[in-house]
Amino acid sequence: MGAVEVNISMSVDGYITGPNLDEHPGLGERGEILHAWLDDTEGKRLIGAIFASSGAVITSRKVYELTGGWGEDGFYEMPVFVLTHRPHDAVVRGETTFTFVTDGIESAIAQAKAAAGAKKVHVMGGASVVQQALNAGLVDELYLHVAPMVLGAGTRLFDHIQSEFSLERIGLFESRFATHLRYRVIG
Amino acid sequence: MGAVEVNISMSVDGYITGPNLDEHPGLGERGEILHAWLDDTEGKRLIGAIFASSGAVITSRKVYELTGGWGEDGFYEMPVFVLTHRPHDAVVRGETTFTFVTDGIESAIAQAKAAAGAKKVHVMGGASVVQQALNAGLVDELYLHVAPMVLGAGTRLFDHIQSEFSLERIGLFESRFATHLRYRVIG
Repeated sequence: MGAVEVNISMSVDGYITGPNLDEHPGLGERGEILHAWLDDTEGKRLIGAIFASSGAVITSRKVYELTGGWGEDGFYEMPVFVLTHRPHDAVVRGETTFTFVTDGIESAIAQAKAAAGAKKVHVMGGASVVQQALNAGLVDELYLHVAPMVLGAGTRLFDHIQSEFSLERIGLFESRFATHLRYRVIG
Repeated sequence: MGAVEVNISMSVDGYITGPNLDEHPGLGERGEILHAWLDDTEGKRLIGAIFASSGAVITSRKVYELTGGWGEDGFYEMPVFVLTHRPHDAVVRGETTFTFVTDGIESAIAQAKAAAGAKKVHVMGGASVVQQALNAGLVDELYLHVAPMVLGAGTRLFDHIQSEFSLERIGLFESRFATHLRYRVIG
């Protein structure tokens, strides 16, 4: 089975969105800076490699709804498992099937691993999904894309973490608009 | 005048101490991992270069007391300005003079700049001093030594930050036990 890799953009002060999500749905106020690296040549190459290594995606119902299910074409072109409290029939958009999982993070990750085969399970957020996966001891790798910004407010990635984790750095990469830190979780 | 550089070790989740400071004064429970990079050959070279570029140090009364004023020899061998609410006569230990500053962060930094001449002012913590300096717009550079650890609890470096700051990455360095991220604050 492939590894479970959290893959997320954050500010230097650990925010994955800016403040005022009500008025600025999605990334919050000034939060678009967190994703600027995706528009750069190096960033495009990097995210291409990340997608190529991934066989399934885990996300939250909140992110799914905020993005409108990533538009009409489904975007990911691989199975996406949406963690939610509210049951919903599967949705097919282009090459992407969205499966709504109501029985918790362990189940979502087990289903994603089965779907991904030898490829990685890509946990793309939101913060609560990442925190649940970390707290359940189900994260193998942490790939942080750190934007050169102190936001001061917003949604913290590392909140409600219930124990410490030692990490091993397995990659370090600079692109124009971010520093990419890749760690293995060693428990 | 030299730049004001915050120079601090933190976990991947942004803590500069572990939890339970009452029982584990200084770095908190398991917080010593944050400073492991200082014992490595590369880390020693790096901190040597940082000290060589510094002409004065800013710290808090809390850190001063926790470290016992860095022992009998004064450690820094340069002027140290200790931000405090309680007046105290200057203390001389070896080559180090500790000056206690009661009229705020602006005054502490102005005195440190005057003492440092062309060299940098090295803001070493604690968290509150760094936050006061950032919030006053007085930090030119942020040098973060990121230990491969998710601590989950402790003292957050980036708390009570009152506005956002754009940064420019000016250095990236790997040592065995940390990743060293250096930024210029561009406001």
